[in-house]
Amino acid sequence: MIKILAMPVILMLSMAISGQSPKNYIRYVDPLIGTQKMGHTYPGATVPFGAVQLSPDTDQQPHNVNGVYNKETYKYCAGYQYDDTSIVGFSHTHFSGTGHSDLGDFLIMPTTGKLQLEPGTKEDPSTGFRSRFSHDNETAAAGYYKVLLEDHNILAELTATSRVGVHRYTFPASDQAHIILDLMHGIYNYEGKNVWTFVRVEGDRRVVGYRQTNGWARTRTVYFAMEFSKPFKNYSIKNFAKMEYRGFWRKFNEEDNFPEGAGKQLRAYFDFDTKEGEQIEVKFALSPVSTNGALMNMAAETNGKNFDTVKKEAQAVWNKELGRIDAEMLSDDDKTNFYTALYHTFLSPTEYMDVDGQYKGIDQNVHKATGFTNYTTFSLWDTYRALHPFFNIVQPKRNNDMVRSMMAHYDQSVHKMLPVWSHYANENWCMIGYHSVSVISDAIIKNDIDKEEANRALDAMVQTARTKYYDGLGYYMDLGYVPDDKNSSSVSKTLEYAYDDWAIAQAAQKLGKKDIYDEFIKRSENWRNHWDASIGFMRPKMSDGTFRKEFDPLSTHGQGFIEGNAWNYGLYVPHDPAAMIEMKGGKDKFSAHLDELFTMHLPDEFFAETEDVTREGIIGGYVHGNEPSHHVAYLYNWTNDPWKTQERVRMIMKNQYKPTPDGLGGNDDCGQMSAWYLFSALGFYPVAPGNDQYSLGSPLVKKAVVNLENGKKFTVEAVNQSDKNVYVSSVTLNGKPLNRRYLTHADIMNGGHVVFQMSQEPKK
Amino acid sequence: MIKILAMPVILMLSMAISGQSPKNYIRYVDPLIGTQKMGHTYPGATVPFGAVQLSPDTDQQPHNVNGVYNKETYKYCAGYQYDDTSIVGFSHTHFSGTGHSDLGDFLIMPTTGKLQLEPGTKEDPSTGFRSRFSHDNETAAAGYYKVLLEDHNILAELTATSRVGVHRYTFPASDQAHIILDLMHGIYNYEGKNVWTFVRVEGDRRVVGYRQTNGWARTRTVYFAMEFSKPFKNYSIKNFAKMEYRGFWRKFNEEDNFPEGAGKQLRAYFDFDTKEGEQIEVKFALSPVSTNGALMNMAAETNGKNFDTVKKEAQAVWNKELGRIDAEMLSDDDKTNFYTALYHTFLSPTEYMDVDGQYKGIDQNVHKATGFTNYTTFSLWDTYRALHPFFNIVQPKRNNDMVRSMMAHYDQSVHKMLPVWSHYANENWCMIGYHSVSVISDAIIKNDIDKEEANRALDAMVQTARTKYYDGLGYYMDLGYVPDDKNSSSVSKTLEYAYDDWAIAQAAQKLGKKDIYDEFIKRSENWRNHWDASIGFMRPKMSDGTFRKEFDPLSTHGQGFIEGNAWNYGLYVPHDPAAMIEMKGGKDKFSAHLDELFTMHLPDEFFAETEDVTREGIIGGYVHGNEPSHHVAYLYNWTNDPWKTQERVRMIMKNQYKPTPDGLGGNDDCGQMSAWYLFSALGFYPVAPGNDQYSLGSPLVKKAVVNLENGKKFTVEAVNQSDKNVYVSSVTLNGKPLNRRYLTHADIMNGGHVVFQMSQEPKK
Repeated sequence: MIKILAMPVILMLSMAISGQSPKNYIRYVDPLIGTQKMGHTYPGATVPFGAVQLSPDTDQQPHNVNGVYNKETYKYCAGYQYDDTSIVGFSHTHFSGTGHSDLGDFLIMPTTGKLQLEPGTKEDPSTGFRSRFSHDNETAAAGYYKVLLEDHNILAELTATSRVGVHRYTFPASDQAHIILDLMHGIYNYEGKNVWTFVRVEGDRRVVGYRQTNGWARTRTVYFAMEFSKPFKNYSIKNFAKMEYRGFWRKFNEEDNFPEGAGKQLRAYFDFDTKEGEQIEVKFALSPVSTNGALMNMAAETNGKNFDTVKKEAQAVWNKELGRIDAEMLSDDDKTNFYTALYHTFLSPTEYMDVDGQYKGIDQNVHKATGFTNYTTFSLWDTYRALHPFFNIVQPKRNNDMVRSMMAHYDQSVHKMLPVWSHYANENWCMIGYHSVSVISDAIIKNDIDKEEANRALDAMVQTARTKYYDGLGYYMDLGYVPDDKNSSSVSKTLEYAYDDWAIAQAAQKLGKKDIYDEFIKRSENWRNHWDASIGFMRPKMSDGTFRKEFDPLSTHGQGFIEGNAWNYGLYVPHDPAAMIEMKGGKDKFSAHLDELFTMHLPDEFFAETEDVTREGIIGGYVHGNEPSHHVAYLYNWTNDPWKTQERVRMIMKNQYKPTPDGLGGNDDCGQMSAWYLFSALGFYPVAPGNDQYSLGSPLVKKAVVNLENGKKFTVEAVNQSDKNVYVSSVTLNGKPLNRRYLTHADIMNGGHVVFQMSQEPKK
Repeated sequence: MIKILAMPVILMLSMAISGQSPKNYIRYVDPLIGTQKMGHTYPGATVPFGAVQLSPDTDQQPHNVNGVYNKETYKYCAGYQYDDTSIVGFSHTHFSGTGHSDLGDFLIMPTTGKLQLEPGTKEDPSTGFRSRFSHDNETAAAGYYKVLLEDHNILAELTATSRVGVHRYTFPASDQAHIILDLMHGIYNYEGKNVWTFVRVEGDRRVVGYRQTNGWARTRTVYFAMEFSKPFKNYSIKNFAKMEYRGFWRKFNEEDNFPEGAGKQLRAYFDFDTKEGEQIEVKFALSPVSTNGALMNMAAETNGKNFDTVKKEAQAVWNKELGRIDAEMLSDDDKTNFYTALYHTFLSPTEYMDVDGQYKGIDQNVHKATGFTNYTTFSLWDTYRALHPFFNIVQPKRNNDMVRSMMAHYDQSVHKMLPVWSHYANENWCMIGYHSVSVISDAIIKNDIDKEEANRALDAMVQTARTKYYDGLGYYMDLGYVPDDKNSSSVSKTLEYAYDDWAIAQAAQKLGKKDIYDEFIKRSENWRNHWDASIGFMRPKMSDGTFRKEFDPLSTHGQGFIEGNAWNYGLYVPHDPAAMIEMKGGKDKFSAHLDELFTMHLPDEFFAETEDVTREGIIGGYVHGNEPSHHVAYLYNWTNDPWKTQERVRMIMKNQYKPTPDGLGGNDDCGQMSAWYLFSALGFYPVAPGNDQYSLGSPLVKKAVVNLENGKKFTVEAVNQSDKNVYVSSVTLNGKPLNRRYLTHADIMNGGHVVFQMSQEPKK
């Protein structure tokens, strides 16, 4: 009894929900997966969908140097590259897996010895405050990160609540111990990115302030409150920018224990005397609203808690969330892949509001989320494909709140558009399409969304899809396609718009809005306008109606596509694969065409154009590392050869996901790559979100139980499962043969039991 | 009855209060007084203490050019110089009478013909959107301004509520009518002053946005909402700054009717077709909090009101406020001086909160003023002398709220200091001393301030006065003076600190805090430490205790004083004139010394050093245009020659205040110069705020009735008044001879009746 009372409440809660002792899922999470090369994941500490992502940064590469793009920047989308040998510090915000970036706010670095206020170089870490480290002295876990900073002999540990990063630094004996707060640091920084920063030292333990940037997010401000467990003996805020005007502040020596700093390039440091092994903890809270909001968040989430308590709670929350799927795999490696993928899908979108519900909206005003949790970081061109459909099964409550967050964005948008790629009260307009409509349609089709809310959402979808000045959309509406002489990536845009329009039509149909259905189902046919029968590929079309003369379907750049050539992206008609296959010459011809894609050799000149992926990120000419191909392996299901889907998806799971730092062949893209893996590992995939069907593949799990929020359990079993038995010889649902190539959403949510009979032989 | 019902409510209210038809006071207000040369007043439209000061700017001079101060800037502290012949537009925020500046937010300019987006030059207005104008076609009145913009043939009219500027432009027939919104314009601008600006066009009539600057206020943001009475046909937001990073916004043509602009250098324009004589009205609301706040303010103050209604109400409010003193003067010129001075004293501090009480605090958080109106723009080194004491009689409720606003500043200050020179959630630290303590002490001594509130205020005063890192204060506390080798303007600082300390002691005494009284009454003696008996002047002292060797009491620069030489500023011991006079050699010697000051010739080389005043701003060596001398003429009252006070103050009133654009010989300094005039015209002056005595002078009024907020009437009568009869032969209070040289605050607030018998002969 006493023992149980002493357990953290959250653990008890978890036990109460599951009705049993919690399993240890987090031991199968390795946040280092994807930190090498192209994965762009970060290894640091966070909680599920947490607002704070506290993680080591190994370098800061400027995005622009004198207005010229610096290619090195791209490697540092998540701040950390596994091959680096030094760490510049620990910052509090990171995207997971993106292919463009921002953030990296508020770098903290503990040091000892002579004060150095420049980070120094990778080549010679001793030139600055950065420190060498070794992976041997590094631990990355769900909710916890640890590393020895060799140059300073400091053990650094990180953990987090949703809004508070908690640091613990174990110092050697020193009368020159420092903790640096660097507001100049950032990810995808460039000269002038810091629009304004502000630091205020309140007493001898507390610091508040903010950073306002102009980057991927054009107008973004993050506020912070920071509290040391021990008073500092001395501090300084240094301004590294040329001050054109100091006014009467010249009355003060602003660098000598002066409590207020403001400017574009600030670094502060705090000095301590430390005994051997002395630990200093730092709580660092964020807010999208104000420094008072950050203080409120800190109090609400960490009052009375030390590092160990916060760490325990963070890991308990992770264990609980990961327990939404209980999977048995063939090997620990597979299990690590599975739970790390699940971990990665639970990183974003992130919570974006103070504990009282206040947040800054895209109209730059402060709003209050009433009755829902507000989220940000919507990488929708990526995540509409599998991540949000995955949430519709595994995290439907959160997914509905994500829809509400998108609607709040819409309400605040001067364009009356749903988000395209949004983060932190900003639309960054990255990539193409208007895929919020897919996420919302999928939610309307699959979940019981309140009718009034659904109708309001449909209005938003329609308004968004009628914004003529958006990215070739006016031409698309007038001509039925995006003309290549008027807009870039023309074919990709037409294809994505056509799919999005179909998604709108589905929602309209369910809501009984026939006129809207008619308008958008017609638009959803526009993909046909790019079909060039003479070459058998989708092809860019000019505004005069002729096809573009120069065209190479193997090339990715400047051929009317983006992040995918015509071989890959040209197959993007997820809402009507049958029609597309018919156009391509019928089932068998198409099956052979896919075979060619998976087995061709992509010449180096064309590989070089393939963004965001390593050579390992492609199979033949199939590029798994970029999203437009994610449905492709499942297209065999519309031919006479579904066994090829089974073979391909097992091959992709083996080739493209490894339990190693370089285990992701392309950007994880806020969990989309991982969501593809999880669906495929469970044996099915949502080819067209907005459709309630999931196309069957070949499960990788031996058995998996999905603990649904409605209290039911959906079970997948693979009988005779092995690495060789990748083919499915038969499927039963609830004990009865399943004579279709898909599961429905209802099959899952009703707590179905699906049994795959696995075999070494394809069922041709 | 019907007639009365049709009157504006505010007028009826005014009548109800006064119990009679309102007199027309505003006909004696001429806002052009002080707009030429050094007065630094603005001629535009505002309401008493209004947050919006909508006024024409005749030029914009950069404060810094390549880091070098531009002397021309100074002329444009209020945006307008009477001698200029063209107007660049109408901006919404202006200081009145300051000697350093900021603001000038959101310039609006209507034009016709070919669109020009640069302001153009003074020398050739046709090079830009600015327009020539003539004073013949210009009207400036309380709450109303009108001018013909000749280059565009547009009649521009301005009026305002507290938070909303209202424009009315009468256009000629044109298919090229434009209204320009310039966010690059500003007062005391410099390269990089705009930290960020934001514009959002909502529909075809409404625009919102903000301007964030780094200037005199280091971190200041003002939000706006703008609404046209007629839809625009076309618009554009142009970014004149080099964009280092556009990101995916390059998808759009952001200059073609695109509704969202952000950057450092924005100008927008809105196109209209206009018929001959067509009027377009623009409502322009400000907020310190948000664009939604600005919209709320606009709705609350102007919904359902057109230009004419707002103008009528603004002028009615002015008439009501000016009616607080009903004065009979010897001439209309004197009456114009009197009511324009009263107008100028009612311009600042300004209201600084949304209609719901929300405002941004100095900690950069949003706060709510509960139970009081929050004010900003505290030019305290100037205004503690006479403006706030004047408010203590004429506007005690507002003055108490100003004290509450200072206390809110203190509560939010990381330094735990009351304001020094604060505006818009910023401390700009301008000038010297900590004169909030004088204002608060004066309020505690004279008004019935709640005891708890007074004790809290005393704590704030004490904390402020103990901030050792502030401007030589640590030395002052340790040595008893500010040493000249450690800090500039050392003598001025010691003298001001000593007076402030005396003010703290007075409050402490009234509140029964003996220890605080003892501490600060002792500090208040520190002025003695600068007395150099060998030369008979206050003189800078070094940290080793010796006097500075080089010293010229005629010189203003680098002699240990600021804005006043030793002749003037060295007399600054307002809390103990008797002791200072004794030190100077006694009453008669001092009287002769003052005579010499008023009659000497100040050589040109020394005049050149006298800041902020014209040659007319000095009398002999007496510099009325700067504040440290404002008590000097009253010092004769401590000698055997009070008749000289009478003579001098009448001379100063005649010489230094004229009903002409160049009528102010120095900066009006947020109403301090005007408050000196009003006190003196009523026949008395508060030599030492914090003391309840007002030193008697010679009234200029024939009769004046002050309508006190307590319902009583204080009356001053000057029998036998004339321009020659400047001497007072006797004074009665309530019919009884007044045998002292001062009035007390109680004499006034009890509704006393003071009669001065005037004479052509001094009473020696």
